[in-house]
This record gives sequence, structure tokens and C-alpha cells, in this order.
Amino acid sequence: MPEVIKAGILGATGAVGQRFIQALENHPWFEITSLAASERSAGKTYDKAANWRLESKLPDSVKDMKVVPVDPKKVDADVVFSALPSDYAKTVEAEFAKEGFVVASNASAYRMEKDVPLVIPEVNADHLGLIDVQQDKRGWDGYIVTNPNCSTIVMVPTLKPLMQFGLESVTVATMQAISGAGYDGIASMAILDNVVPYIGGEEEKVETEPLKLLGEFDGTKIIDADIEISASCNRVPVMDGHTENIWAKMTQNPTPEQVREAFLNFNPGLGDLPTEPNPVLIVRDEPDRPQPRLDRNMGNGMGITVGRIREGIRYTVMGHNTVRGAAGASVLNAELLHKLGKL
Amino acid sequence: MPEVIKAGILGATGAVGQRFIQALENHPWFEITSLAASERSAGKTYDKAANWRLESKLPDSVKDMKVVPVDPKKVDADVVFSALPSDYAKTVEAEFAKEGFVVASNASAYRMEKDVPLVIPEVNADHLGLIDVQQDKRGWDGYIVTNPNCSTIVMVPTLKPLMQFGLESVTVATMQAISGAGYDGIASMAILDNVVPYIGGEEEKVETEPLKLLGEFDGTKIIDADIEISASCNRVPVMDGHTENIWAKMTQNPTPEQVREAFLNFNPGLGDLPTEPNPVLIVRDEPDRPQPRLDRNMGNGMGITVGRIREGIRYTVMGHNTVRGAAGASVLNAELLHKLGKL
Amino acid sequence: MPEVIKAGILGATGAVGQRFIQALENHPWFEITSLAASERSAGKTYDKAANWRLESKLPDSVKDMKVVPVDPKKVDADVVFSALPSDYAKTVEAEFAKEGFVVASNASAYRMEKDVPLVIPEVNADHLGLIDVQQDKRGWDGYIVTNPNCSTIVMVPTLKPLMQFGLESVTVATMQAISGAGYDGIASMAILDNVVPYIGGEEEKVETEPLKLLGEFDGTKIIDADIEISASCNRVPVMDGHTENIWAKMTQNPTPEQVREAFLNFNPGLGDLPTEPNPVLIVRDEPDRPQPRLDRNMGNGMGITVGRIREGIRYTVMGHNTVRGAAGASVLNAELLHKLGKL
Amino acid sequence: MPEVIKAGILGATGAVGQRFIQALENHPWFEITSLAASERSAGKTYDKAANWRLESKLPDSVKDMKVVPVDPKKVDADVVFSALPSDYAKTVEAEFAKEGFVVASNASAYRMEKDVPLVIPEVNADHLGLIDVQQDKRGWDGYIVTNPNCSTIVMVPTLKPLMQFGLESVTVATMQAISGAGYDGIASMAILDNVVPYIGGEEEKVETEPLKLLGEFDGTKIIDADIEISASCNRVPVMDGHTENIWAKMTQNPTPEQVREAFLNFNPGLGDLPTEPNPVLIVRDEPDRPQPRLDRNMGNGMGITVGRIREGIRYTVMGHNTVRGAAGASVLNAELLHKLGKL
Repeated sequence: MPEVIKAGILGATGAVGQRFIQALENHPWFEITSLAASERSAGKTYDKAANWRLESKLPDSVKDMKVVPVDPKKVDADVVFSALPSDYAKTVEAEFAKEGFVVASNASAYRMEKDVPLVIPEVNADHLGLIDVQQDKRGWDGYIVTNPNCSTIVMVPTLKPLMQFGLESVTVATMQAISGAGYDGIASMAILDNVVPYIGGEEEKVETEPLKLLGEFDGTKIIDADIEISASCNRVPVMDGHTENIWAKMTQNPTPEQVREAFLNFNPGLGDLPTEPNPVLIVRDEPDRPQPRLDRNMGNGMGITVGRIREGIRYTVMGHNTVRGAAGASVLNAELLHKLGKL
Repeated sequence: MPEVIKAGILGATGAVGQRFIQALENHPWFEITSLAASERSAGKTYDKAANWRLESKLPDSVKDMKVVPVDPKKVDADVVFSALPSDYAKTVEAEFAKEGFVVASNASAYRMEKDVPLVIPEVNADHLGLIDVQQDKRGWDGYIVTNPNCSTIVMVPTLKPLMQFGLESVTVATMQAISGAGYDGIASMAILDNVVPYIGGEEEKVETEPLKLLGEFDGTKIIDADIEISASCNRVPVMDGHTENIWAKMTQNPTPEQVREAFLNFNPGLGDLPTEPNPVLIVRDEPDRPQPRLDRNMGNGMGITVGRIREGIRYTVMGHNTVRGAAGASVLNAELLHKLGKL
Repeated sequence: MPEVIKAGILGATGAVGQRFIQALENHPWFEITSLAASERSAGKTYDKAANWRLESKLPDSVKDMKVVPVDPKKVDADVVFSALPSDYAKTVEAEFAKEGFVVASNASAYRMEKDVPLVIPEVNADHLGLIDVQQDKRGWDGYIVTNPNCSTIVMVPTLKPLMQFGLESVTVATMQAISGAGYDGIASMAILDNVVPYIGGEEEKVETEPLKLLGEFDGTKIIDADIEISASCNRVPVMDGHTENIWAKMTQNPTPEQVREAFLNFNPGLGDLPTEPNPVLIVRDEPDRPQPRLDRNMGNGMGITVGRIREGIRYTVMGHNTVRGAAGASVLNAELLHKLGKL
Repeated sequence: MPEVIKAGILGATGAVGQRFIQALENHPWFEITSLAASERSAGKTYDKAANWRLESKLPDSVKDMKVVPVDPKKVDADVVFSALPSDYAKTVEAEFAKEGFVVASNASAYRMEKDVPLVIPEVNADHLGLIDVQQDKRGWDGYIVTNPNCSTIVMVPTLKPLMQFGLESVTVATMQAISGAGYDGIASMAILDNVVPYIGGEEEKVETEPLKLLGEFDGTKIIDADIEISASCNRVPVMDGHTENIWAKMTQNPTPEQVREAFLNFNPGLGDLPTEPNPVLIVRDEPDRPQPRLDRNMGNGMGITVGRIREGIRYTVMGHNTVRGAAGASVLNAELLHKLGKL
């Protein structure tokens, strides 16, 4: 890969922004060229603007980089990764796409827009065909590609191989990590020795995003999958890693062994993407796996671990919510865009 | 209540045994007269034999009581509360029943025996009719009455009022407290910053015990309820309080409001039992309740809190696993036996 | 006690405010007559204004009480308990004292003012003589009495009985609960699986407040005790209860047994105060006590547990930071004021 | 390094044994050739014998390796790393040393024996001169070298540079991680929402081992350093990383800035050892560092982070207890032995 792709990060100082830096540091294709954040941070060096809270060291390469405002005129990049809050993303991401940037967004603002691809590379790479639709319709030089909510991302790669059995309905109970709410999202008094059985807006996302992801692209639009999903979302005292109990009803009533085989055989053929995990689905046969503390870093945080496949069909899946479920998802989308010649 | 009922505790030094002492201290009907434990403990005073680990003070009344062996000849009591491990309970509880004791057991050994009542007073008090069947069949002077597993107890009082709507199937995901495994049951390295998606034998209990509890007693035996239950059980870093996400399918498709009303109107008429909570089901309308830390002590730990009643029908229920779900359950059963003149 | 003393709470909706409500509910002397909070809350009923987060139920008696502004003209009370933030307390508490209220304050604003008593009843009840000095100097009809910081309160009742041995210096390392920072004070991502070795301003308070508390009142002023205190304060993932490792150097070099006796014999003679714990200092001889989870509720949260008394002299002390260390401290001060005829 | 040094692990299946595997995987000098464990494990492949509980994947290179008994005749290695329990280590380590093995031990059995080096490479590499004394005295072909207790290792590298200021006394309060007690060492009910102010035998080790480590080797024996150490050791709900508040009295009364400089300048010149961190002491100037969750993995878990250097002299130090404080310590000792031609 002779030339380097210039990457900017929008919302670079927050929790997901820091995960973007971690994901892009030492990336073989992308180089961080711009760190954009709010007016309060702009003008400062990154180490002064951000309170680095990851377990790894703040990379020297970004430490002294000057933070710029979230403004297309101030950002030097081919692709911008967006970790912006959703309301703000609505306006800003459009401005960047209009100015010709490729926007790989983790925000929810555009996910459900009809002409915006909502993509997990292993699930629906062909939905990127919507980019042309989007550019035609909006007259933008660039475009926006989104990845789903963290709970959705952990679940849908296991649903994809179940589609062959006639997937009809999904019941899912999530046990979500505190990092999903951002650094200051959950007070310690709220969650120590506790479970909070509610996450605002989460169940709606988990019940609708998969329908688009598993839908069919007919050349001009996505036809949603016909699956009934019912979710109950809970917050638990875990740092990283969303765990989900899933019940999947299929018309063909596969056996647990058939489901296990389908998971093991799931190979989207994306091994040439730098951060693609191999395998995508890690099947554990021990009765007490997956566990977030032990399995969240598999595949550098991009692997999805599945276990307890039983009659029902019931199983449990777990993935790293701020890597696979956020920053890593956007980066993987950008890698796919580059492979396809769209970036 | 002029005369006092003499109460013994089998397995008095363990986690549930300590909860029995807490439940019986200052009880208006029962007085602790015997504390029985393993040979290692027998002969010592209780404060020497047990490592008291509850947040309340070790009651002065039992502090200096001498621990006796788990032997019907050494125990002076009308009723014995059993916190024995299940394999040991199988032999020992029969010996006590044979010798004329009323055995109120929290152990699983006899729960599914056809002639042994498995009872939650608010759900199936009439199943106590099995006592006569049991005594006839086994030729015992006393008898055994059991209460269900902690996860079952938290769930079934909410299923009972749903029976009127034609309850067909239940899907349940549990998030269970560490105290459910006993004091040394879960290593801290296993559960800190973690979820363990497996509890040995738990799902089987949650899937079968409710069928007996919600079944009909025809004068000689229980006819199991015809409900399909599917459970996924998880351990979470919570001290006390099992939280459960429930999906209930009913032939009559009640609205969430109808279900809420059914919960609010659930009144088993047991207000004359000393530890019966009022109400049994505490309905919370806030979106983020129940929570174990905030709600587990409602009704002195005997109340069951339910919330998030939504289309589906979906809801979340939470109860104190070692009070309502263990020691308190056996004590409530004994109170009911006394009210019915069987003790 | 025929007549009832009317009590107001300033800052009634916050974490310490809620503890005040809990402490005053069912109090034999005081009755809550006013709940004051910020403009945002004023006018609403208490259950609407506050997000009740204690494990006990929101008392019915205050549920529907209308919240009033923090304004002497709107508050109907003989004594006001202040849970205000320190900067705000500086202005507001003076206004209340000027208008004739007795202000029992948990805020730090006036603690170190020369004419304001900083009092732990068991330690320096005689410092209340400063009230006259204060009223003379400031021309107030009412007055302000303060209690110390939560870490100080847990420590100083153990230092008081050591004064007889010629206490010279104290080294203290604290392990403080998250509730000390208020409900939203510590993000869960900051403290789960972590220790934070810093609490802003805390070490300064722990190093200076005891000197005033253990000082002598000469009729007009306090002469600080001549003790050197060095503190390192840490935050740990504990809900309630501050644990402190203490090293105390004394000129008379008492033995651990002498120190233990001094703790056991510590009896300030305040048994007629309703919330005074008996004993004040609970001495535990087990090697692994005190522990916050097991000991914080002793004496209804007002007891202070001490253990591990060893050569050095070293020992460990633990107390409930939001009961004994905050709301309960102010209430105990008010009880003392009433006993002395000053309220 | 052309030839490879063959390494065995004694006690390979336990928590520290697993850390040894992690430390030796991909090591440039050592290759794991023998995994030894109890009779129960011997004969099984490692993945069957051990319950792998680290966040990284069980290395393929050891997965199918057959576990051998802890017997010098069955172990093929130049050096054996010992993670044995102390009582067992006493006998077994001598057998291995007698048979010619170099034993690098993390067990406490031989630490305080006069002819056995207790070494932290950065602190007292010259104490390895005791090897000759040991072999002479005991007539062994091999020898034993030990590393100190985890709490000692975290502290002493900060005391070493303070020796130049005339270190007289140390007061230390530790907040230790649960992994220090082994996988099943601490029950979750014991430590969730809690602090346990006692760790059996720990304070004695922290008060005595540093005297040997900081002592002088006169060619035949160690003359202990003349420092008074007083420790209070606490367990806190943290997975990995011991945090310690230290007060150090020195005759020359250095300023905090002088101490900071001494820490920054501490360079033992061991940069040619593969796992030696650079720097050894990481000085953080933020007020709220070090923190175990954020800093324990610095220098691949071998770095020691120090902060909050204040008048007193007081400071806080933190290091990874099962890497730097256990397995990594033994491996670093073995690297030093190899560099010195003794292995």
C-alpha cells in the first residue's frame, strides 16, 4: 500500500474518540492527520485537551498534535471518523460529506436514513451501493457511511448465518458495559452492586437496526428483513464488553449442532482487511463462556465470542462494545471502502 | 399467640442458615431452640462455630447457644428449617420427618418428589394438601414442605396473576446475585468486572419448578401447568437480589395496562402471616426500576418489585434471593402451616 | 418531650439531604417542617423534586411535602440542617443565622471560622461555648454550629481517648467510599476495578480540623491542639463507609492493650441523646475487622468500629460516611444543643 | 542469542503459573520445555489440566504440551520458575537445586534464608554473590534465587533511590488487588463493596524483606539495612495492581522536588535485559495518579508508577502484582543470571 490515507477524528477527545486513536495508531493504511473537537479543546495540544483514560499509553504520535475545530475547512483528511454526539452529528456530518469527505460515522444520526448505508462488513457489504444513491440524491461530493449501535453489532453477525434457516424472530436480553454510556455516563453510585434494567433508546435501536442490516439492497433501496425482534436492555457493573442472551426462532428448526456449524463456517472473506478478526465468530464450547472480562479482547477486540448454543435455539454472545461496537466498527467500514476503491 | 413454636435450624452456620437466624429473631410465633450444624461445629457456641457475615449484628439470643449435631435425637424443636446442601438433605430431612418433625426446607432434594409440596404461599397454598398424601405413603409422623429455587420464587408470583390471561410460554433471562452461590461459592476474580453466563443446574430448575407450582392439586397429586419455559441464567457482580427479564405469551394477549392492573390487584389474602409483605408485588412505573440495590429490601426483603411492563408482554422483576428466595420463603411456608393448623 | 422541635433541611434533595430525611424520620424530638432546595426544585412536591436513591423507602410523611426555596422567609423551622454546597453555604447559612435560626451545618464553609463551633459531641461539647462569642461578634439572633468532614469524624473519636497518653503525631491513610462525593460525584468508569489516590481538598481538612476539635476552649477562643497530622486520602469502590489506617505516636508509649482499654472505656456520657450510639467505639478483636460492608450500619450508622490495634501504635477505624460522617453528625449536634437548652 | 535456554515452570496451572507462561511466550532467551504441576494434573495436556483465566489467549505453543509431575527427574530444563505454594516449595525447590537446576522462585520459602539471594535486579543485583555461598554450604549443583513478595517489590524500587538521603523509616499502607491471593483466594462476597484491612502474613513480609533487599553484601553475607518499616495491608476490590501510600523519613530531609529527581534519575543500567522496563520508575505529575486500572500495564506490567510526591516525604506507588510482583520478577531475575553468566 504505497500511499497513506489521511484520517481525521471528529470528537477526538471523548471515550470513543480515544478508541479511534488507539485503533488508528500503527494502522497500515490510515494515518491520523487531524484531531477535531469542541471549541473548548481546539487550539490546545491533544494531551492538554483530552483526559486520556485508556489502559494503554497515549501515543506519542498524537500527544503534541494540535486539536482543530470540527469544521471541514480546518480538517485535513480523506476520511473522517465521527464520534460526535448524535444531535450534533446530524448537522456536522452533512457539512463534511458535502465538502467531499468520506464520513465513517459511529453516531446514530444518519443510521436509519434511507439513502445512508448502515454497514457491518461481514454482514451487508453490498449495502455500500447506497453511496451512489446518496450522492445522487443529496448532491454531495463525499458521503456518509454508518455503523450500528454497539449492542446491535455484537448480535447481528450471529444472526447473519442463521438467515439460511429462515430466521423469524429474535428475543434478546443484554447485559451492557458501563463504557457504553461514555466516561461520565454512569455514576458509580448508580451501578456498584447493582443492575439498571433500562438504557434510554437502546431497545428501539436493537429492535430496528438489524432489520436494515439484514435487509436486501435492490439497487436503489434497502428492503427490511422480516424478523420480529424484542429486546430488554440492562446495564451491569462491567467495564467493557456487552453480553447478550439470544433466543432465535427459525422456520427450519435447526439443531444446536447445525447452528454451531453455521457459526464456525461463517466466513465473509474479508481476511485482507487489516483489522478483520479471524475468525469473526469465536465459538466456545465450555459451559461458562463467553465472559466479558476473559473474551472481550479476542481478535484485538474485534472478535465476537459465542457460546452456550442450546435447544431453543438459545445462545449467548459477547463483544467489545467500544472496539468492535464503536471505533473499530467505523475503521473496519473504512477499510472495506478502501478495498472497494471508494476511498 | 400464647404458646411459642420451637424452631430448629439445620445447617445453621452457613449463609442461608444465618439468614434463618435473622428471619426468626424477634419473630412473633417462632423461637429458635436448636442450632444444628456439621460435626465440626457441634459442641461449640454459635459465635465460635459460625463466621457471622451479615450486615446486622449477631443476635445476643443465639450468640452463646451451643450448636448440636444434625440429628433428630439432639434437636429440640417443633419445626426445623433446613439450609442443608441438597445431597445431604435427601437423607437427613427424611430422618427428621420420620421422627415427627415438620421440615420446612430450602434444599432442592425433595422439591420435585410427587408427594412433597413445593409451595409459595401466595401462589399455591392448596398444594399443602399433599402433606396427607406424603404421610400416608411414607408412614412418617412429620412431613417435609419445600420452597422453590431463588430464581423461581422471584418469577412465579408474577406469573400467577397472568394465568387468568391464558399463560402459554415464558422466556426469562436472569441476572443473579453472588450470594445465591453461598459465601465461598464465587471467587472474586471470577466475577469482578464480569458476567458469567452460566449457573449449574439453575436453568433446569427455573424451567420445571414453576410447572409444579402453577399446577393443579386434584386431591391426590399435582397436575403440572402446561406452560413452556425457556431460561438463560447469568451471574452478575451484585451482592443480593436477582433481576429477571421476562417475556410472557398469553392466549388472551392482554395489554401492558391490563397486566399492570393484574399485578396491582394480586392479593392472596395472607395479611395475617407475620412476614407476608404488603403488597406482594410492588409495581414501579419509573423506567429504570426495579434495581437490586434500591429495591431488594422492600417488605423486609420479602417484597417482589416489578417494572418495565411493556408490549410483548415484557417486564422485569427483582427480589431478594437469600431472604424472599431462601430463608424467608421457608419461614413464610411455616407461618402458613401454623395458620392452617398443621404446625 | 412534650413540644416538638421544628426542623428544616437546606439542600433537601441531594445525597446528604436524603440522609437528613432518613435521620429525622421518626425522630423523637425533631419533626421535619420544611424542605428547602434550589429554585429548580422549589414548588414541586418532594417526590417529584428529588430522585430518592436510598435503600429504604421514601417516607410517606415527606413524599407530598412541597419543596420551598432556600430562603429564611420561606422556611418554617427552629433548626435548619444544612447539606448545602460549601460556596453557597457561606452566604445562605449566615442569612439563616441572622434571622434567628439555629443552623446545624454539614458544609465546610464555616468550620474553621474562629467563632464558629466545630463539634463532635463525644469529643468537644464544651466548644459550644463559642456560640455566645459568635452571636456577640456578629450580632446574629441565631447561630451556626458545624460538624467536621466525614474522614475527620471517623478518626477523631479514636484520637480523643489517646490524648491522655500525650498524642504527638498522627499518620493516616484513608480508603473512602464513593458516596462521599455525592451521587454524581464519581463516574463508574473512574472507580470500577480501581483506586483513585486523591480527593481534592480532603487531606487538608483531615490535617487541620482535628487540631481545632481536640483543642481547648478558653472561654473566648479555641487553642488548637499541638499534634502533627499527615494524611493520604484514597477513593475505593465501596458504597458507604470510610476505612482508615492510623499510626499514632504518643509521648507515653502506651501498649496496644492500654490503647484498647482506652477505646473500650471511652464514654462521653451522652446516652440521653436519641441517636447517640452505645458504645461510641466498637472494638473488634478479629484480625480482619472493621470492614465497611459488615460494620457500617452498627449503632444505626452512628457507631465507629475500631480494630487491629497493634504496636506502633497502629490501628484501623471505620465509620459510615454519610450517616455518622454527615447527616447524622449534624443531627447529633442538634440533639446536644437541645439538651443544653440552646435549641 | 544463538542458543535457547530451556525453562520449566513448577506449579504451571495456577494463577502465577499462568502468568509465567504469558511472560515466557515469545521470550527471546527462554523457551518453555516443561510444565510441572500436581499429580492430579500430570499426564494431561495443559489445556485440559489448567483452567486458563487470563485475558489473553492460551498460547498454542503450550496448549497441547503434556504436564509432568513436580519431580527433577521428569523436568527437562536449565532453569525452573517456581510458582509453588510456600510449604511445598521448601522441599521441592531444594530437590531441584540439588539436581543442578537453577531455581528462580516466587515462593516465600527461602526468601529469608541467609545464603539465598532475595533479589530485585534494579535494587541489589550484587546479592547474587550469595549463590557461591549457597552452593558451598549446601553442596548443591544448582541453586535457588528468590524474588520478594508482591507488595515489597512495588515499594522497594522507590526506596532504593531514597537511600542516598539517609532513609530512616518507612510507613506504608497498601491497597492490594484480589489476584494477589490466587484465583480462589478471595470470595466475591468478602470483597464486593468492601475493604478487608488484613492480609495474613503480609505486613511481616513488607516489614522485613526490604531490610535484606536494601542491605549490603560483604562477600559472605547480607547485613540488613537499618530502616524501621511499619505496614498496614488492606485488600480492595481491584483485579490487578497494588497501590501503596508511603511516608519516608530521611536524615537529609530532601524536598519533594529532590525526591522526584531521584526517581526520574533512577537508572540501574539493565536496559539489555529483555523485560526490563524503561524507565523503571514512571513518575506522574497529575494529582490523581497512579491508578491501578490505568497504570498497571505500563512497561508490559513491569513498570512501577509513582506520583503524589509531597512534603513529608509522602508519595503513592503502584505496580502490577502478578507481573512485576510475581512471575515477571522471577523472569527478570533469570535474565539477570543469564547476563551474568550464571545461567
